[in-house]
Amino acid sequence: MSTISPPQNPEVNPRVKAVFDDIRATRGNDFVNNLWHYLAFDAGLLETTWRDVKGLMAKPSHLDPMTKELIYAAVSIANSCEYCIHTHTAAARAKGMTDKQYAEFLSIVSLAGRTNHLLNGIKVPIDPEFDHENKD
Amino acid sequence: MSTISPPQNPEVNPRVKAVFDDIRATRGNDFVNNLWHYLAFDAGLLETTWRDVKGLMAKPSHLDPMTKELIYAAVSIANSCEYCIHTHTAAARAKGMTDKQYAEFLSIVSLAGRTNHLLNGIKVPIDPEFDHENKD
Amino acid sequence: MSTISPPQNPEVNPRVKAVFDDIRATRGNDFVNNLWHYLAFDAGLLETTWRDVKGLMAKPSHLDPMTKELIYAAVSIANSCEYCIHTHTAAARAKGMTDKQYAEFLSIVSLAGRTNHLLNGIKVPIDPEFDHENKD
Amino acid sequence: MSTISPPQNPEVNPRVKAVFDDIRATRGNDFVNNLWHYLAFDAGLLETTWRDVKGLMAKPSHLDPMTKELIYAAVSIANSCEYCIHTHTAAARAKGMTDKQYAEFLSIVSLAGRTNHLLNGIKVPIDPEFDHENKD
Amino acid sequence: MSTISPPQNPEVNPRVKAVFDDIRATRGNDFVNNLWHYLAFDAGLLETTWRDVKGLMAKPSHLDPMTKELIYAAVSIANSCEYCIHTHTAAARAKGMTDKQYAEFLSIVSLAGRTNHLLNGIKVPIDPEFDHENKD
Amino acid sequence: MSTISPPQNPEVNPRVKAVFDDIRATRGNDFVNNLWHYLAFDAGLLETTWRDVKGLMAKPSHLDPMTKELIYAAVSIANSCEYCIHTHTAAARAKGMTDKQYAEFLSIVSLAGRTNHLLNGIKVPIDPEFDHENKD
Repeated sequence: MSTISPPQNPEVNPRVKAVFDDIRATRGNDFVNNLWHYLAFDAGLLETTWRDVKGLMAKPSHLDPMTKELIYAAVSIANSCEYCIHTHTAAARAKGMTDKQYAEFLSIVSLAGRTNHLLNGIKVPIDPEFDHENKD
Repeated sequence: MSTISPPQNPEVNPRVKAVFDDIRATRGNDFVNNLWHYLAFDAGLLETTWRDVKGLMAKPSHLDPMTKELIYAAVSIANSCEYCIHTHTAAARAKGMTDKQYAEFLSIVSLAGRTNHLLNGIKVPIDPEFDHENKD
Repeated sequence: MSTISPPQNPEVNPRVKAVFDDIRATRGNDFVNNLWHYLAFDAGLLETTWRDVKGLMAKPSHLDPMTKELIYAAVSIANSCEYCIHTHTAAARAKGMTDKQYAEFLSIVSLAGRTNHLLNGIKVPIDPEFDHENKD
Repeated sequence: MSTISPPQNPEVNPRVKAVFDDIRATRGNDFVNNLWHYLAFDAGLLETTWRDVKGLMAKPSHLDPMTKELIYAAVSIANSCEYCIHTHTAAARAKGMTDKQYAEFLSIVSLAGRTNHLLNGIKVPIDPEFDHENKD
Repeated sequence: MSTISPPQNPEVNPRVKAVFDDIRATRGNDFVNNLWHYLAFDAGLLETTWRDVKGLMAKPSHLDPMTKELIYAAVSIANSCEYCIHTHTAAARAKGMTDKQYAEFLSIVSLAGRTNHLLNGIKVPIDPEFDHENKD
Repeated sequence: MSTISPPQNPEVNPRVKAVFDDIRATRGNDFVNNLWHYLAFDAGLLETTWRDVKGLMAKPSHLDPMTKELIYAAVSIANSCEYCIHTHTAAARAKGMTDKQYAEFLSIVSLAGRTNHLLNGIKVPIDPEFDHENKD
């Protein structure tokens, strides 16, 4: 159950059509997933969201594409964002993630959840050796 | 301020000494960071924590070492675990992360935080295309 | 799927009936939403929850009614509480929120999610200028 | 660094004094911890917070006192609330928690953090056997 | 909707069969819940997860069985892990939790959620009295 | 302790200087808070962060300025982002928030934290009445 209704014919709005066309062109296929249909209720929100997702996730950069999706999915798991978990897990697979790598990814995310809770419980003081400023 | 006091001479306990020795051997240096000193208040907790961190993070596997640290750090940021953020950011640097890659990592973590909140707010229904079971 | 079953005829319990009657009177209609039906499994929990929600959200106070619902919904999004997101988004609409305001609300919640993650990642020290005690 | 300054002489306000006196009487000692000094900036917020903490945590009930503190501390760890972690860990100790029990508590909280992340990552469907309604 | 498909005949893999057999033997019944069926996509992940859950939750220890389930459920609620909430609430009931105790458990979890947010909002400094190190 | 060192003379980089100048001009004073000094380690990250914060928070829009800061602060509290809590609580004060309003804001954030945990614990099904799509 969603809090908004996606517009019936979103592409009658030329700003929405421009974003949808760019999504299709960037991805090289015709599938526009639900997220963008729902965001189309407000063209400005749609435009800024797509601009930033495209700018960061859809072109060559300093980190490889699969690693970027894994970072994204890891945060989404910690935040319990089900939609983001599904889309970025699927994207990581599309960018080459094997089942073995996925099992290892889940193990690391889980280990982080475990030590995060352990350390938040104990509140261990941070070693001065990890102070980046003083190491430079 | 921590909820426990680390034991004064932890290595008089042979189980603690065995873990500390293995930490030093695995990492190839003498530095044993605070986490392990604090966990030494309970040898069992120290042993199982080190066993799992070592097993997953310290040996060759299906994901490269820097990617593993970035996944770990990403979860730690979403969970606000300050100690884990510092140690795993430092570990990512030690495994080759450049400043450009760190800025990109932070951008992706932040973008995920943003879209996680956006999608948790709207509760967009998940597209059937992301259903892994039905795609197989 | 819920962890408890709502009582079949909750209003045979006079304490439950008194709360349900007050919900109807306060809101000026007959709709008692699921939350209260489920909480009716324990009259004490029902009474204290309604007392505090009514006391804070249902009468004139220092913040305007729509702002109060937006604050409530913002926390609920960050906590991934789907039921609360739906009820308080609906309440904000009932208190005058337009689609333009909702899109802006979502943008701010998302921006906060983004900078929260960015700053939790970097752990920027807090400027002394923000120390309320020293400014007085 | 706090967002508010605690009032200098809070007990000149008779409503604040009444709460502080009740805190001392309930606990049987003269120590009023920082939380209450800071909340004293608004007598109403102080009164309702103390009323509810006292009502739930300070008298005999259906769960034993140490278990109640452990539940409280567990949530506080997952929410990264440092002040609450310190006060409720201290309270659990005061109510009998041994070091062995504390190590086990931390292990369970950490295991929960780990499986929470694992299951939020996979999104395993809930077994119908756990549906309370259909079992009754 | 899950991100993975559980293997059709998981017990043809002898490592999976060994874990499933141990789950049945440990619990004294034939029910193997969904979690283990899904984790069976990777035998290693299945083995380490079961090893740690069994080691901590399924045998006599320093905390009583119901208290352990309540701690686990409390963390799962704070982390919005729906599957874990259902399984550990059910387990707490199986280990003796009454409706009155469940209502009290929910009240404490909720009170913690409330004061966690209150104190994270104000950032009250931690009293030196709660510093375990300086008290010893 | 931060994970990065802010550049010593950030404004020798013309892209950084342009952002700092715009921050000063937009706010009408010379104070550039720590966040921007730290982000200056990467000009691109600095530019996109400032662009979006300015675009959303610094000009007239559909929600009033104080409400916008309260929404931002509410999310930051739920996410335990200490830096954001301090800056946006200060900004809300600068935009007119009184102590009475702040106490009410904290009460609503806390009430939301409480009912979020209560409802995440029970998993109450969402009433069809809150389904926006079917109401239109």
